[in-house]
Amino acid sequence: MRRILISEVPKLIGQKVRLAGWVNIRRDHGKLIFIDLRDRSGLIQTITLPDKTEAYKIAKKVRSEYAITVEGLVKERPGNAVKDKDLGKVEIEVEKIEILSSVEEELPFEVSQEDLNVNIQTLFDHRNLSLRNKKVNDIFKVYSQVLKTYAETMRGNGFLEIKTPKILSSATEGGANFFKIKYFKRDAYLAQSPQFYKQAGVGAFERVFEIGTVFRAEPHFTTRHVNEYTSLDAEMGFIENFSDVMDQLQETVKKILKDVKKNCSQELEKYDSGLFVPDKFPQIKLTEALEILKKEYGKTIEGIDIDPEGERLISDWAKKTHKSDLIFLTHYPTSIRPFYTMPSQDSQYTESFDLIFRGVEIATGGQRIHNYHQLLQNIKLHRLNPEDFKHYLDIFKLGMPPHGGWGLGSERITQKILGLSNVKEAILFPRDVKRLTP
Amino acid sequence: MRRILISEVPKLIGQKVRLAGWVNIRRDHGKLIFIDLRDRSGLIQTITLPDKTEAYKIAKKVRSEYAITVEGLVKERPGNAVKDKDLGKVEIEVEKIEILSSVEEELPFEVSQEDLNVNIQTLFDHRNLSLRNKKVNDIFKVYSQVLKTYAETMRGNGFLEIKTPKILSSATEGGANFFKIKYFKRDAYLAQSPQFYKQAGVGAFERVFEIGTVFRAEPHFTTRHVNEYTSLDAEMGFIENFSDVMDQLQETVKKILKDVKKNCSQELEKYDSGLFVPDKFPQIKLTEALEILKKEYGKTIEGIDIDPEGERLISDWAKKTHKSDLIFLTHYPTSIRPFYTMPSQDSQYTESFDLIFRGVEIATGGQRIHNYHQLLQNIKLHRLNPEDFKHYLDIFKLGMPPHGGWGLGSERITQKILGLSNVKEAILFPRDVKRLTP
Repeated sequence: MRRILISEVPKLIGQKVRLAGWVNIRRDHGKLIFIDLRDRSGLIQTITLPDKTEAYKIAKKVRSEYAITVEGLVKERPGNAVKDKDLGKVEIEVEKIEILSSVEEELPFEVSQEDLNVNIQTLFDHRNLSLRNKKVNDIFKVYSQVLKTYAETMRGNGFLEIKTPKILSSATEGGANFFKIKYFKRDAYLAQSPQFYKQAGVGAFERVFEIGTVFRAEPHFTTRHVNEYTSLDAEMGFIENFSDVMDQLQETVKKILKDVKKNCSQELEKYDSGLFVPDKFPQIKLTEALEILKKEYGKTIEGIDIDPEGERLISDWAKKTHKSDLIFLTHYPTSIRPFYTMPSQDSQYTESFDLIFRGVEIATGGQRIHNYHQLLQNIKLHRLNPEDFKHYLDIFKLGMPPHGGWGLGSERITQKILGLSNVKEAILFPRDVKRLTP
Repeated sequence: MRRILISEVPKLIGQKVRLAGWVNIRRDHGKLIFIDLRDRSGLIQTITLPDKTEAYKIAKKVRSEYAITVEGLVKERPGNAVKDKDLGKVEIEVEKIEILSSVEEELPFEVSQEDLNVNIQTLFDHRNLSLRNKKVNDIFKVYSQVLKTYAETMRGNGFLEIKTPKILSSATEGGANFFKIKYFKRDAYLAQSPQFYKQAGVGAFERVFEIGTVFRAEPHFTTRHVNEYTSLDAEMGFIENFSDVMDQLQETVKKILKDVKKNCSQELEKYDSGLFVPDKFPQIKLTEALEILKKEYGKTIEGIDIDPEGERLISDWAKKTHKSDLIFLTHYPTSIRPFYTMPSQDSQYTESFDLIFRGVEIATGGQRIHNYHQLLQNIKLHRLNPEDFKHYLDIFKLGMPPHGGWGLGSERITQKILGLSNVKEAILFPRDVKRLTP
């Protein structure tokens, strides 16, 4: 008999079916044994009666998280029993059970509860188990939707999907936080972004996007940072100015939020996530943001960049004044942006932006310098050595059009959609300074 | 005036348009200057007349690969001129030209020719330029389609897209070819496949797929190997046997080939790639394949595994006898498969397969051991230390269902679709033992 999914059962009342999945929980009521079975499509209650001798013997043995198959008759649940809506309107009267695989040790927590309520180290130490909890599991359904919509929206706008190398010959790119690797007889480095290569992609394809791993050797211990994550990158050529880039990012993010809302409504329910997404995200200059922080929140910032608390407050302000969970901060000072960022008319500032979503920067981008000579000069202005950027500079000897793009954190946008307190919760097996396992 | 794409021009005869792109080639005929303009959507001929003084001055200056914008009138090309079908049926009578970006050095080869005819080192040394050649460029349109269809087919079959860590705490997984990295104060390793983590994914989601980078520290110098590539992985739970896995892979590969044929017909034309794809790919045991090689081709193999020449010959045989460019070889001996491979009833062999496409293995997969105790024993049988697999073994303490999956090389399938002689040609910026640039 062919196995079917639990989601297919409701239309098969009165018929015999074969299911497979995990024991979410087993409960014994008098002589009856109730096993809630869980598969990738849902949850269903099964009842084993003592007169089904063989099945009953096996039902007595199974414990939470055993992998089993169940054969039995589909019945409507009595009306008054249908309180627990997760279990649906039908149940299985069991005829046969088979154990595919058992559990080899005491479980550290009960997977079937709605909220796991374990600390974050336990959550990750027992990741194989915690991922089976529905609410945790649902995070990755949303995550998968984010990836899907990102690719679809990019393709729909004429962007070609590319894959760029993660092993680099040198640690340049205007950042210092590279992991070093032993590459045969020499040293090499892990890419901390596809920046240079997606710009090369513009030269070949005009519009490119990449969904790829990036590696950051940053010794951060925050709820926003991890050392390996999946970046949603894009780069587009023949732009008029950096508003073209922001418009495209805005359209993409809006589509992601819309699709998640539409296709993951059941997952969102558990997270109670009401999003404020205006048609046009507010855009303010970073300097204006700093003034607002001072005037509205009495917060003075040391230096010229906004800090994490400032990002939270400016998000609060955007929500209050613009009914928006998203806000673009623009025109970051030249000194805190990489050398390849296009300067504004006032060359103290740059044609760049960050996108803040519910208090956290989820994307950063801007227009890039496309003129070879200007780029060469800017490398020197940033006190970098042009020799180190030989292969990068080569791109600009070949007629590069005005262009710009962004990097968008796939895990951060997922985190913020669901209101998770730590970005690591949106990563299957997160990597931080201390954690490389499981 | 808003820039439009060249592909939009044919329906705008008699109207004024603004285009942007690269100079594919400039030709002067008497007093007329012809510039073939190339953008991501196609190629178009523009004509600048001497009486357009400003435009003419600029047209005189532009060279191949300059990035420019052109404004002008759309005209039908005279009938007898429409021989070069790449240029289409319309042309632009230029009114205005603007140089966005020029070329800073002598070009090592002419991009506009149909075939570059450069050796493979030149192809990659000048990758930013070679990617602009239409035939080279087209490879990545096909590649992008491969990625798209892979994800769509997997999703359509209930697989969840996941992203697994590329930084590992130890170099296990039954292979020795790991790159070592310096991870803060300790050593770590780059994943050579998502094998362990996609199996963990089965425990949480039943069916998962991943499109991700894998790193192989193999000192190979062949046309089939690179040290970094993009693997199309999948893993599925609750299978009956490893035929379920082969069936799913077969469906996926067929869909990829079908979509490429349908959506990339123009790109395929340049490659003259007629594929033989039967509804069901032939499947033969590896031992049978070795016998066929001996009987039909007089080839004796040292050892128990097939070699690259054998893979080419068995492909030849499959094409001759089954009219198929694809063939599954199955039941590889236990000793040449990783420890986690499910043994067959005759435990000398395994429930495993390779998929050969036009002489090259493009995918490898099989059923995995899901029972904790059997896996533990098999680790010992393979003379490995269970201590090294602690985190992997943990997955199997939690009721793992029967499962299996595959890894499919995205670049190899692209290479073979197009009949490229080297897999590196299907990679934007390939990495091999000697090459880490550009």
